[in-house]
Amino acid sequence: MYKAPITDMKFALRVHRKHSPHLAHSLPDDEMIDVILTEAGKLAGDVIAPLNHSADKAGGAKRHDDATVSTPDGFAAAFAQLAEGGWTSMEADEAFGGQNMPLALSSCVNEMWQASNMAFSLCHLLTQGLISALQHSASDTQKATFLPPMVEGRWTGTMNLTEPQAGTDLAAIKTKAVKTGDHYLISGQKIYITYGEHDMAENIIHLVLARTPDAPEGHKGISVFLVPKYLINEDGSLGARNDVHCVSIEKKLGIKGSPTAVLQYGDNGGAVGYLVGEENQGLAIMFGMMNHARFNVGLQGLALSDRALQQALSYAETRVQGIPLAKDAKSPIIHHPDVMRLLGQMKAESEAMRALMIYGAALLDESEASDDGDSSRADFMIPIIKGWLTEQSQIMTSHNVQIHGGMGFIEETGAAQHYRDARILPIYEGTTAIQSNDLLFRKTIRDEGREAKALIAEITTEAQAQISHDDEAISLLATDLQAKCQEAEDAINSLLARRNDARDIAASGVPYLMMLGTLTGGWHLLRQGVLASSALRQEGADTAFLRNKLASCRLFAALSLPQASSYAQMALRAGQATESLSIEDWLA
Amino acid sequence: MYKAPITDMKFALRVHRKHSPHLAHSLPDDEMIDVILTEAGKLAGDVIAPLNHSADKAGGAKRHDDATVSTPDGFAAAFAQLAEGGWTSMEADEAFGGQNMPLALSSCVNEMWQASNMAFSLCHLLTQGLISALQHSASDTQKATFLPPMVEGRWTGTMNLTEPQAGTDLAAIKTKAVKTGDHYLISGQKIYITYGEHDMAENIIHLVLARTPDAPEGHKGISVFLVPKYLINEDGSLGARNDVHCVSIEKKLGIKGSPTAVLQYGDNGGAVGYLVGEENQGLAIMFGMMNHARFNVGLQGLALSDRALQQALSYAETRVQGIPLAKDAKSPIIHHPDVMRLLGQMKAESEAMRALMIYGAALLDESEASDDGDSSRADFMIPIIKGWLTEQSQIMTSHNVQIHGGMGFIEETGAAQHYRDARILPIYEGTTAIQSNDLLFRKTIRDEGREAKALIAEITTEAQAQISHDDEAISLLATDLQAKCQEAEDAINSLLARRNDARDIAASGVPYLMMLGTLTGGWHLLRQGVLASSALRQEGADTAFLRNKLASCRLFAALSLPQASSYAQMALRAGQATESLSIEDWLA
Repeated sequence: MYKAPITDMKFALRVHRKHSPHLAHSLPDDEMIDVILTEAGKLAGDVIAPLNHSADKAGGAKRHDDATVSTPDGFAAAFAQLAEGGWTSMEADEAFGGQNMPLALSSCVNEMWQASNMAFSLCHLLTQGLISALQHSASDTQKATFLPPMVEGRWTGTMNLTEPQAGTDLAAIKTKAVKTGDHYLISGQKIYITYGEHDMAENIIHLVLARTPDAPEGHKGISVFLVPKYLINEDGSLGARNDVHCVSIEKKLGIKGSPTAVLQYGDNGGAVGYLVGEENQGLAIMFGMMNHARFNVGLQGLALSDRALQQALSYAETRVQGIPLAKDAKSPIIHHPDVMRLLGQMKAESEAMRALMIYGAALLDESEASDDGDSSRADFMIPIIKGWLTEQSQIMTSHNVQIHGGMGFIEETGAAQHYRDARILPIYEGTTAIQSNDLLFRKTIRDEGREAKALIAEITTEAQAQISHDDEAISLLATDLQAKCQEAEDAINSLLARRNDARDIAASGVPYLMMLGTLTGGWHLLRQGVLASSALRQEGADTAFLRNKLASCRLFAALSLPQASSYAQMALRAGQATESLSIEDWLA
Repeated sequence: MYKAPITDMKFALRVHRKHSPHLAHSLPDDEMIDVILTEAGKLAGDVIAPLNHSADKAGGAKRHDDATVSTPDGFAAAFAQLAEGGWTSMEADEAFGGQNMPLALSSCVNEMWQASNMAFSLCHLLTQGLISALQHSASDTQKATFLPPMVEGRWTGTMNLTEPQAGTDLAAIKTKAVKTGDHYLISGQKIYITYGEHDMAENIIHLVLARTPDAPEGHKGISVFLVPKYLINEDGSLGARNDVHCVSIEKKLGIKGSPTAVLQYGDNGGAVGYLVGEENQGLAIMFGMMNHARFNVGLQGLALSDRALQQALSYAETRVQGIPLAKDAKSPIIHHPDVMRLLGQMKAESEAMRALMIYGAALLDESEASDDGDSSRADFMIPIIKGWLTEQSQIMTSHNVQIHGGMGFIEETGAAQHYRDARILPIYEGTTAIQSNDLLFRKTIRDEGREAKALIAEITTEAQAQISHDDEAISLLATDLQAKCQEAEDAINSLLARRNDARDIAASGVPYLMMLGTLTGGWHLLRQGVLASSALRQEGADTAFLRNKLASCRLFAALSLPQASSYAQMALRAGQATESLSIEDWLA
């Protein structure tokens, strides 16, 4: 059972529209937003969500001896419905059949796909990434050839970065690309290729990082190629099978419905590939799409968190158990104070995560639309959104298991599946450590803390303005936010002061990221609380929703913000403590 | 690969012996301790550990159509080796063939069994629990009949509490027991019975909670019975098959090697059972063994944490990846500051957990031996040890997955298995919420905070004494501990002041427990640090181990103690915030 959180999405969009002039004119009107979210919610809840647990239970995707891969029952039909409904074209440019919808809105829809069935919806997510990459970097001919079928949902896309010896370290890539006439011949092995082979689309377009024979060593010698599963004839019809094959799929902890392929290129002479952009510009092109890709993984963290919350709430509402301190001897466990605490924390944090997700989407929209191409706030927020939302999803899906008690450990309930599925999120598209390196070195140290301090100053100003708010939930949250902002500023100053000891501060990167995630989540809940408080006084207000939005503010202040202090303290001394440990002594 | 952490165990025992007069005379001498730990370590590392991943990979225990259950390949033979080596008799009284070893020592051995293969070693753990229960509560005839074969490892034991409608709420138990001559006929269904059916022993003895026909309602009408799988003849040989059968086993998230059975009693007239103690005393008897059972689950949390740490360290030491800030372009990832931070936190916390585990064991030993039966400190510490160690094991096993990166998500490495296995620990033998209720209401409010404050005062005194210690690692830890103790005392006073609002403070129970876990863990690391510092000056000292013990002190101060502040803050306002959420509004 999955019910799209449309009320909260609309409320969050309303708050963001108040704070973003760009969104105020780029978002469709409320009626259109309602239609879009409602229709997407139906497809997600009625068609896609029911396939989530069944796919996992049946063991997920299967590879056959002829190197084909079957996705679980129902996936192909659901993907066809996604395409028929026009959902695969939401974000693309109109020139290629897209609807050019603002990310702030399409991301709400994407949240629904990912929440209803992350294993299934990864295929669409990857294809979106490829569409976005090609829009930015491909030639006109490549765009005309590859984009429309992907936008229509007839073809899907993949990203081929990792090799066995080259994970986080892309400089170690060995896959070869040899120029032959108007194309290249690609050979090598790529691993962890999500939807690298499957049966949901007519063709699969692989975006592949490889090296030409005379390329420079390391990062500077990587190029990027388009390698279709089936070659494409002049008239756009499908031609011969290309020389790329799935040699195995991984047995994974979660997202079992999505095939994670090992792809072998060029065993029969070389796979035909087409260079995107210029030679040796591969990493720049890939990094150009990194913000979107990382943002979308953060979104997945939110999606699984909300799914877990919905399941936990529904279980707690129906599971009857005589419990201490319940109102009646036999009550649903939702009346147990600790179950309520867990649910309350999940509610407040997932709402903060959603607000932050939409904030990130709006920033990406703004920087895409801005004349000067200023994306400093977006660049600053993306690693925070990727890191904090995915780390939070570990806790949220774990809380859901905990609320289920013994039943949570039995696979039948599905709570365990969400927990397993979520575990990939802080790993792929750059681990939390990689996000924190990006945040700390590229986004904080490089501009001497300008963006970091501007953000803290903005939160402080907004918090100060609400400290005397009539509503205690708001004044409490504002007071705490202000105090934690001071601690955050101290931590930032300490990191800047120690900038010359890169190893020292690098060990503080993850606590620093988590501190900022918690703070910015609280900031956006504060904005929501302020609107909720005034909206409550309006006629016809959804008082049930708005009152509990204020409860979320109180819950976040009581249960989440204290962690910001803890992370700030860790950021001060993590490096010194870590360096005191002797690896040599340990391994002695 | 599992290597028993013998050096740290011996060091921890040495520290505890300094602080416990009881241990000082009850523990064997150093040489004997070394022999015991070394021999157990060999069996754990060479025989039991290699069966852990293979059992999981093969799908775990299997039930057949004839209601028998096969354990994974190698389990039965390993169990026979455990028995042959005399390891099943460590804790039992000498009168029944046991060795009467102090828990403080046998628990170190138990840590090895659980770390090497928790799914396998659960069988032994449950049997230990049954032996302990019968020693306390069974009649002489029952002891003579049932104890020796279990102590020898020929028979195993189970606990039958849960029914579908009765989990946390044991008052809801419906299983019936009707007196017939010298025995009772038991009928009903029990679920979640660990090793309820298997092929590793000649007989299985079930300890079953049930109701007699005229028993009072609720908690007061529960009796406890011994129900053997095979009846026992006068001469001790096995007789007829009893009327208890395994109707299914659960498909679980983890510990797949251990069969979790649904047992059906009395489908053919009733299973023969023997009353333990008096009628309607069942819960008192079960609660009498609760401290040991809960302690042992805490121990499992430590065990999996150390196993995860060992695996993470070994991976980080060998996985080469060009990474930012590494000493060389191509270094093992252990040189990455964030990997070191994770490993350092795991090291410091698992050492603190081990120190706390042995402290708990020593307290149980002391209260068992004491003339006045005073067990107030043991009673106070057990829910903390159960709660904190098992919650920590979630983080530790997750860190191991994270250090493995993408490989952590692939089942082949085994990192995912530890993560899955650990997830049951904060659930069974009473969830963390149940532990926190026990700690807060029975152990803190009931004596008006006497024991809680005595503990805080003890830590404060020891911390104060070390604040000016020459070694900065120690003075830092002592300074922080003292500050956090003050925050803890404030939290305790706040909880006491709000005692009349039970729902309010109940929502603060888990943060309260986690705060005390963190503080007491830091306290025991401080004790270890003080000894390490003086031991370093002795000739022939294991300087590599001792220097890194001081690093653990620094790491715990920098990365773990900040969380105590955060928990203390949560304990102040969790209830008020939770109560502000309206369930009715939410479900509207």
